[in-house]
Amino acid sequence: MRLLDDFRRIRTHSIHLCSDLITEDYSLQASEEVSPPKWHLAHTSWFFEQFILVKYAEKYRVKHPHFNFLFNSYYNAMGQRTARNQRGLITRPSVEEVKEYRKYVDQAMEGLIRKDNPEINELIILGLNHEQQHQELLLTDLKYSFWFNPLDPIVMDIDEYPHEEKSQWIEMDEGIYEIGYEGDSFCFDNELGRHKVYLHPYAISSALVTNGEYLEFIKSGAYSEPKYWHDEGWAWVKENKIEAPLYWEKQNNTWTYYTLNGRKFLDPKASLSHISFYEASAFASWKGMRLPTEFEWEAAQEKFNWGNRWEWTNSAYLPYPGFTIAPGALGEYNGKFMVNQMVLKGASVATPEGHSRPTYRNFFHPKYRWQFMGIRLAKSF
Amino acid sequence: MRLLDDFRRIRTHSIHLCSDLITEDYSLQASEEVSPPKWHLAHTSWFFEQFILVKYAEKYRVKHPHFNFLFNSYYNAMGQRTARNQRGLITRPSVEEVKEYRKYVDQAMEGLIRKDNPEINELIILGLNHEQQHQELLLTDLKYSFWFNPLDPIVMDIDEYPHEEKSQWIEMDEGIYEIGYEGDSFCFDNELGRHKVYLHPYAISSALVTNGEYLEFIKSGAYSEPKYWHDEGWAWVKENKIEAPLYWEKQNNTWTYYTLNGRKFLDPKASLSHISFYEASAFASWKGMRLPTEFEWEAAQEKFNWGNRWEWTNSAYLPYPGFTIAPGALGEYNGKFMVNQMVLKGASVATPEGHSRPTYRNFFHPKYRWQFMGIRLAKSF
Amino acid sequence: MRLLDDFRRIRTHSIHLCSDLITEDYSLQASEEVSPPKWHLAHTSWFFEQFILVKYAEKYRVKHPHFNFLFNSYYNAMGQRTARNQRGLITRPSVEEVKEYRKYVDQAMEGLIRKDNPEINELIILGLNHEQQHQELLLTDLKYSFWFNPLDPIVMDIDEYPHEEKSQWIEMDEGIYEIGYEGDSFCFDNELGRHKVYLHPYAISSALVTNGEYLEFIKSGAYSEPKYWHDEGWAWVKENKIEAPLYWEKQNNTWTYYTLNGRKFLDPKASLSHISFYEASAFASWKGMRLPTEFEWEAAQEKFNWGNRWEWTNSAYLPYPGFTIAPGALGEYNGKFMVNQMVLKGASVATPEGHSRPTYRNFFHPKYRWQFMGIRLAKSF
Amino acid sequence: MRLLDDFRRIRTHSIHLCSDLITEDYSLQASEEVSPPKWHLAHTSWFFEQFILVKYAEKYRVKHPHFNFLFNSYYNAMGQRTARNQRGLITRPSVEEVKEYRKYVDQAMEGLIRKDNPEINELIILGLNHEQQHQELLLTDLKYSFWFNPLDPIVMDIDEYPHEEKSQWIEMDEGIYEIGYEGDSFCFDNELGRHKVYLHPYAISSALVTNGEYLEFIKSGAYSEPKYWHDEGWAWVKENKIEAPLYWEKQNNTWTYYTLNGRKFLDPKASLSHISFYEASAFASWKGMRLPTEFEWEAAQEKFNWGNRWEWTNSAYLPYPGFTIAPGALGEYNGKFMVNQMVLKGASVATPEGHSRPTYRNFFHPKYRWQFMGIRLAKSF
Repeated sequence: MRLLDDFRRIRTHSIHLCSDLITEDYSLQASEEVSPPKWHLAHTSWFFEQFILVKYAEKYRVKHPHFNFLFNSYYNAMGQRTARNQRGLITRPSVEEVKEYRKYVDQAMEGLIRKDNPEINELIILGLNHEQQHQELLLTDLKYSFWFNPLDPIVMDIDEYPHEEKSQWIEMDEGIYEIGYEGDSFCFDNELGRHKVYLHPYAISSALVTNGEYLEFIKSGAYSEPKYWHDEGWAWVKENKIEAPLYWEKQNNTWTYYTLNGRKFLDPKASLSHISFYEASAFASWKGMRLPTEFEWEAAQEKFNWGNRWEWTNSAYLPYPGFTIAPGALGEYNGKFMVNQMVLKGASVATPEGHSRPTYRNFFHPKYRWQFMGIRLAKSF
Repeated sequence: MRLLDDFRRIRTHSIHLCSDLITEDYSLQASEEVSPPKWHLAHTSWFFEQFILVKYAEKYRVKHPHFNFLFNSYYNAMGQRTARNQRGLITRPSVEEVKEYRKYVDQAMEGLIRKDNPEINELIILGLNHEQQHQELLLTDLKYSFWFNPLDPIVMDIDEYPHEEKSQWIEMDEGIYEIGYEGDSFCFDNELGRHKVYLHPYAISSALVTNGEYLEFIKSGAYSEPKYWHDEGWAWVKENKIEAPLYWEKQNNTWTYYTLNGRKFLDPKASLSHISFYEASAFASWKGMRLPTEFEWEAAQEKFNWGNRWEWTNSAYLPYPGFTIAPGALGEYNGKFMVNQMVLKGASVATPEGHSRPTYRNFFHPKYRWQFMGIRLAKSF
Repeated sequence: MRLLDDFRRIRTHSIHLCSDLITEDYSLQASEEVSPPKWHLAHTSWFFEQFILVKYAEKYRVKHPHFNFLFNSYYNAMGQRTARNQRGLITRPSVEEVKEYRKYVDQAMEGLIRKDNPEINELIILGLNHEQQHQELLLTDLKYSFWFNPLDPIVMDIDEYPHEEKSQWIEMDEGIYEIGYEGDSFCFDNELGRHKVYLHPYAISSALVTNGEYLEFIKSGAYSEPKYWHDEGWAWVKENKIEAPLYWEKQNNTWTYYTLNGRKFLDPKASLSHISFYEASAFASWKGMRLPTEFEWEAAQEKFNWGNRWEWTNSAYLPYPGFTIAPGALGEYNGKFMVNQMVLKGASVATPEGHSRPTYRNFFHPKYRWQFMGIRLAKSF
Repeated sequence: MRLLDDFRRIRTHSIHLCSDLITEDYSLQASEEVSPPKWHLAHTSWFFEQFILVKYAEKYRVKHPHFNFLFNSYYNAMGQRTARNQRGLITRPSVEEVKEYRKYVDQAMEGLIRKDNPEINELIILGLNHEQQHQELLLTDLKYSFWFNPLDPIVMDIDEYPHEEKSQWIEMDEGIYEIGYEGDSFCFDNELGRHKVYLHPYAISSALVTNGEYLEFIKSGAYSEPKYWHDEGWAWVKENKIEAPLYWEKQNNTWTYYTLNGRKFLDPKASLSHISFYEASAFASWKGMRLPTEFEWEAAQEKFNWGNRWEWTNSAYLPYPGFTIAPGALGEYNGKFMVNQMVLKGASVATPEGHSRPTYRNFFHPKYRWQFMGIRLAKSF
């Protein structure tokens, strides 16, 4: 059974990602935006429990009456829940108890998977894609939380910074392009429906911006020059005294950055990461260029390599024509975030194998930097 | 001379808008977003002084060395300036002195207009359109600031609430539409360039939503039901305890609203105003419909009446293909605001005659309500 | 009639203090702590109206039904009121209308004064002392609000900075001292009752600290050295980036300060002002000395000159033995502020003639600086 | 050796207090004011290391170069340190490593204790008293942090709520009393020097206020009646929507409270705890009485039982006559907190045996409630 294999593989992978953690790390939460590893492990199980087992598994008893409160993320339709900034305060249940919760859910789920009900299978596949999203967050959240510790703990032995090839311009013709998912595999509702977009002539870079290129931007004094910035971005730079990407640090004229694998010397040939949309846009402006729209990116993506780094686009996260919100709690998955966020395309070193695709629409508020966010330049002509 | 007439008419109109004010009102500023009338009168003069007279008028001497600091709005390229939330603290120069400043600038400007230099004329027309934008703000800002006074002062004897006709659905075909300004008259840079957009089949309402329709939304309990709201909109409702449009008040089961012309009983047949994008979108969702995009609005606008009320669209304020930012301080006019704002189309009762047009792109952050903002519904099919 | 003369003299003086203002200045309020001149003029009249006329003047009709809401300061027992930080938003009633309100109240009050009722007279005297407190605030508040204007407006033609004589140590013996008001004239409830305090041997300076002495403190780097500061004071210095007293400014190596009479060069021989309790205490610590307690000050006050400047003591503002709170709204006058405030003794250049006395207890939160606050040193031995 | 015994007993007790914790709990920190158990264990060891071992133990090597940064609390003279609200983020070093750190320090300390150097012994005794203070905080901090978990974890099997005896008035004569520590045992610098205070006649209650009495206060509507409250206390009540002591909860008309030993039904005969100074003062005012001063408490303390509960006094935490701050970092122990805090006398169920004494001066900001704070009433006559 393909689905059972996928289920086991993906569920096991979440545990595997925590291999290098000590018990103390599992409750670590350094800001409202990030969640502790234990919470990710529990919430992804809660998702299966509440959206599938409670509805479809005969005689299923929830593991604990408080877990719906403790491990709901943002589904208003599922009731009250732990405040987002207090997830790190839930030291009980213990790590061991959460792992037992996972096993309890897995066992019930495997029974259900064997029934091979198409309607349920669809929900299970959604649950697995949901868990993969949290796998990425587990790594990026923990990186962020560890960063506050001067001991520079190691999240995982991953090299996050591949070298970029030399950039070339890919020219694209004016005309109508088809955008959005089409096919029989899984996609999120925000990738639907497939629709036509009219694009004007543009060129897009074959490579991502590197740390070395961004250092030039810094050295030019661009963080002190309002003309490259959005008004809101400039206010963000001033208020937060931003002078470099997240995790970068300059000591004795040498730049280092904190990575999943500990603190390293900055590699100028590696692709840039951990910049906000404001910084991405200011960099493009400084170059006399711009960011691509999500449509331009998708139309051209077959012609370049992608997947090392989420790429900020200049598209706001908005519904595609004909987009509809599913009834019930699962309707809260995507649609309610479609304001004041920008689309990112691609994937990152932390994205589980096979999770992303060309039509995938990631999205974050312009100010955030803790995901692996990078820049691909574009220009009109 | 047409331009000289326009100049005199528009400049005089700003003063005329203050006819009902007493001296004390001119410095009134109730929040960071709104400006005092005196500041509007001075800033629009500063605009002519700094962007035209200083550059083009021979032997021109600025009226006062501190005015560039006092009356610059947001042009970083023009230097330091009064903090936006402190404009109401500038009791000196007096109202009389600001009026003298206006005359001083007008005299110099009229000399320059008579030279009829095409390059300068273009800047003057920009300055007049800029002043018209501030005329609208002068009214809406003052309405907001007066609202804090339990004496309900009158801004102007204007009836802001025209009745809406009965709504009908206007159906629009799929296909390529031309969007953006084309012609020989004035437009802002954000309306350029004229470009193609592919639209899918949709219908748009011939009328705006009325107060009566919105009351149904309130009565249904929609302000307590998260499923209609964006996540960010829901947080905004809870944090600010929002229960009705701005200026609405319920006492003894009767609704009133504060208007430019004092407090009035709510008119259920009049078009709704003073709602945020969050509320506009939630209302549409409650109706099972949606807001139009700015492109859908523009493509259909010849088929319905508009102009009574700015209309929230579901389009983020982003650059059109090929949009470029002008060099120098005037490049800060529009481009730097193209993030986290939504486009509004139309015009309002406070918009000066002839100021708006079908391609006009007004924009505000989704949370704002103090402009005359309303709702036109749309749907896909 | 002595009381009638006092009434007229004090009421007229409030108007006199506004001689140099233009209409625009009357609504000026730069922060929550300060109030606009118009509000002071109205509130002091409201005090007579609500606490005396409404109760004791036959057939008295309040001037306007909204004035109780608009001009109540902090008396919960008198009902709802304008938020403190929104007093500057009340542009209506106009300055002229407020002056008419004063006349209306004065006329009714004079009728009542002529009845010479001892119980009422006592309240009138309280009302006059209350008005004198607001006269001082009117000047210091306006100074603060004007300070935001780069044009440096003049509040009044007063020289605020008298020269200090040479300091000498006054030695005081150990023993029991009598503290608190005793006599037949007016005093506030917080000066009662007269009681015994045991003091240990101490010395107190005959003169106040000068600007020149404080400059030495600044030059020594004391604003960057935590050891002189209270923990809370140090946090205050860091958070607010404090580097000098309020109103001081250093340009091209020259110190100036903004005064009631405009911006002036700093006079090193003049007495220091506009420092917080934190700064006063840190300065004393830097000197290896301390601030006197309010009891030490009062016990020694006959032996030195005072009155140029309110003087921070190291006494928290707490009730004297046997202190009781009067019933009704007037009980809110003093007692409810007896936490987290420090006592200041003396008087200032802005205090009306004859208003203060040796037992007077002024009080402010340790962080405030906008009153004329100075330092007199003490030491134990 | 007495000191060696004390050292071992007290150091072991800190570990004993954590008997019921799981590893996850050791990093728990729910607000800036409280610290995680692991931090308390490490910081008390750091205190011995930095103030004693580094100076006096030959060839001592600090355990880890980062620990001075990680485990300094507030000693500016000891350098930079972890932000107070980020102590919970330090998941590494692990609990095990911190316990090894304790052993490492203990071993070195025992060597030093055996040398029996009077000067060093004095510092060791300070270190032990310091550790006892943190033992109390360890319990109260953890209680606070656990409270956010709906599972109501148990801190320790301690009954925190002894019953109060019936209250009687103890009358005290007017006169001079001696206040402050005198003797050969240990005391903190803030208890010195012994000095004379003149007290006026007063009576003090033999018993603490009970939960039952406080329930009457709640039922009377006192949390909605400003006249009982300090102005600042009233603002605190409104802003934080305070309606009962910390940890109290009313469900279905039944009151429970969260205790060290889990959630319990409220015991009306037990002594009240977890109220702010504002609430203590408002309660006294509602009773027509007042809180005692710290001097009144100390003068009368032989005549009543105390020790179950810290008792708010109406005395601000200020220096005694002749108080001096020790040179160096240890001078930061007490003196720098002598502003905007109120004195508490007594001890609590969480205070280690023998740690407190009649002259002990505990102190907190008026708003805090997470210590075991109660009320003893007084009155003048």
